[in-house]
Amino acid sequence: MGGDHAPDEIVQGAAEASLALTSAEIILVGDASVLGRLLPRMRHDGARVRVHHAGSHVEMDEKPSEALAAKPDASILVAAQLVANGEGDALVSAGNTGAAVLACARSWPLLDGVRRAALAAVYPTELRRGEKDDPFSLILDVGATIEATAEDLVTFAVMGSAYAKLMSANRRPRVALLSNGSEANKGTPEVIAAHAALVETTELNFIGNVEGLDIPRGVADVIVTSGFVGNVVLKMLEGVSETVVRLARYAHKERLAWRLGLLALSSAIDQLKQITDWQQYGGAPLLGFAHPFIKAHGRSNARAVTNAVKVAHKALAGNLTGNIARTMAELDERTKRSQRSEK
Amino acid sequence: MGGDHAPDEIVQGAAEASLALTSAEIILVGDASVLGRLLPRMRHDGARVRVHHAGSHVEMDEKPSEALAAKPDASILVAAQLVANGEGDALVSAGNTGAAVLACARSWPLLDGVRRAALAAVYPTELRRGEKDDPFSLILDVGATIEATAEDLVTFAVMGSAYAKLMSANRRPRVALLSNGSEANKGTPEVIAAHAALVETTELNFIGNVEGLDIPRGVADVIVTSGFVGNVVLKMLEGVSETVVRLARYAHKERLAWRLGLLALSSAIDQLKQITDWQQYGGAPLLGFAHPFIKAHGRSNARAVTNAVKVAHKALAGNLTGNIARTMAELDERTKRSQRSEK
Repeated sequence: MGGDHAPDEIVQGAAEASLALTSAEIILVGDASVLGRLLPRMRHDGARVRVHHAGSHVEMDEKPSEALAAKPDASILVAAQLVANGEGDALVSAGNTGAAVLACARSWPLLDGVRRAALAAVYPTELRRGEKDDPFSLILDVGATIEATAEDLVTFAVMGSAYAKLMSANRRPRVALLSNGSEANKGTPEVIAAHAALVETTELNFIGNVEGLDIPRGVADVIVTSGFVGNVVLKMLEGVSETVVRLARYAHKERLAWRLGLLALSSAIDQLKQITDWQQYGGAPLLGFAHPFIKAHGRSNARAVTNAVKVAHKALAGNLTGNIARTMAELDERTKRSQRSEK
Repeated sequence: MGGDHAPDEIVQGAAEASLALTSAEIILVGDASVLGRLLPRMRHDGARVRVHHAGSHVEMDEKPSEALAAKPDASILVAAQLVANGEGDALVSAGNTGAAVLACARSWPLLDGVRRAALAAVYPTELRRGEKDDPFSLILDVGATIEATAEDLVTFAVMGSAYAKLMSANRRPRVALLSNGSEANKGTPEVIAAHAALVETTELNFIGNVEGLDIPRGVADVIVTSGFVGNVVLKMLEGVSETVVRLARYAHKERLAWRLGLLALSSAIDQLKQITDWQQYGGAPLLGFAHPFIKAHGRSNARAVTNAVKVAHKALAGNLTGNIARTMAELDERTKRSQRSEK
């Protein structure tokens, strides 16, 4: 029921996913009368999609905690509880991000060793040929944990690495800490302490600190930062994209020579727009809980929703949460060993 | 002696400033034999420029504290001390930023009521016609104070507003706090507390929180944040600019139609590059000390150096430090009054 194009595009996306994924069952959670009317109109695999009723839903602009308090039967809460009860294995939503994160936090346990969850976002970087297949990087946290301790930042590094490994088939994702300088002693006390801990890990391919300059370049596969900074960075990438597009339009109106030039350049500009427009890569995983949650962008169309369902399916098939839990246990074991050897 | 094009372009810039500013005296601090050889070769006003010897200087890539410890006669230290002793009124440098900030911190007192200094940077925003004359915004701190308390953020707001008022002839600069949401309760505890304090001020035109999205748009004239976040944001703007330029070059090589299009569009691309390239606006003021320091970009040429000297001159002529001190005293007075009335 959530997202700018709900419910039509969401149901359409689920219907398409039911045809594309031959080993998944999709439960559409929301107003049964609305969803039950929409689904039969769309091509789908009837054995793989079903509707589960929820009496209300959270609007995109509602305040998360107030909305969940007022609507205990909101579709996002019902869906998170279905997953908590084992009726579902993963959750996908294009709705209110804050409400979805809160619903997961209330319904799902955190993985062992994880103190705080992180929302990760994929953003586009300069094309890299050969050296790296995907022109994407992952940045986390982008808003679930506003203030992150050193321990939280290390956990985010583990979770981001596990996600990149699985999604980009990248065996040793390059993990970096975002800071105000490349040296180990640069940053807030939390960043400096996280750096010191991360250089000790052998489980991660930690490449050190990166600076703001390195974000659009794509120097790292996974960039780790607090939710406050990650949120500013992610929204800034969106703002820069808008500015580029508006400037192109401004140029368009200005002169005949520019107009002709723009016409000739339109595919290059599309490419530039694609590369600066993180929104097209939609799905943002919430990491740290016992179950995967994939947040599709609010503006998702059916294709984006299908992709988000595929990502959730891949997270399950590749045992994302199990991989995170295993690495957290390894880190914990290492810490205990080094504490014992110090005694 | 500092900057990528020192000493030639620095001396040239000072020489030009001596002709442009009829009420300023410029003291060139550095190796007297080098500077004394260069200066006579350039057109300058001999009554307005003189050389003051310093036995060494800090290199661009030296570690600030180590360099200053090893070189007590470094030009930046000698220059800061000249200003502290009243032989100079303001300082300009294109050299090592960290060393310059440290030299000021060791030689100059902070203004009354200021606990931490801030380095401010001017960055380009989308062109705004009518509504706003300059397509610039000021962001502070960008690296002098990595962790800022709520009190520090309020001080940065006062200092940034005073600077924008003077430099852009903007009577009521719009001051905003950078956060992860526009609501007053969004952000780190420091940002939330600073917001609460800033809405109480009548001395400032506080427009509330802005998000990353608003940075390139230019919604605010002054954006206030911690040195950690400001540094990431500023370097990211630089990185995005580089990416745009590289993508344009990539498109250039790719196809004949694109190449022709680029040719026709070259002035629009120059415009885009100008707008995304913060470096051309060079001068970054260090605010909070009893004397103004203008940090010209390391890549400054003579024209940029002349501009930085003009900015320093304007800061003195407009009594920048006095204006900051007055507003800080007004805020302090208000706080005391409200504390008295609460008793």
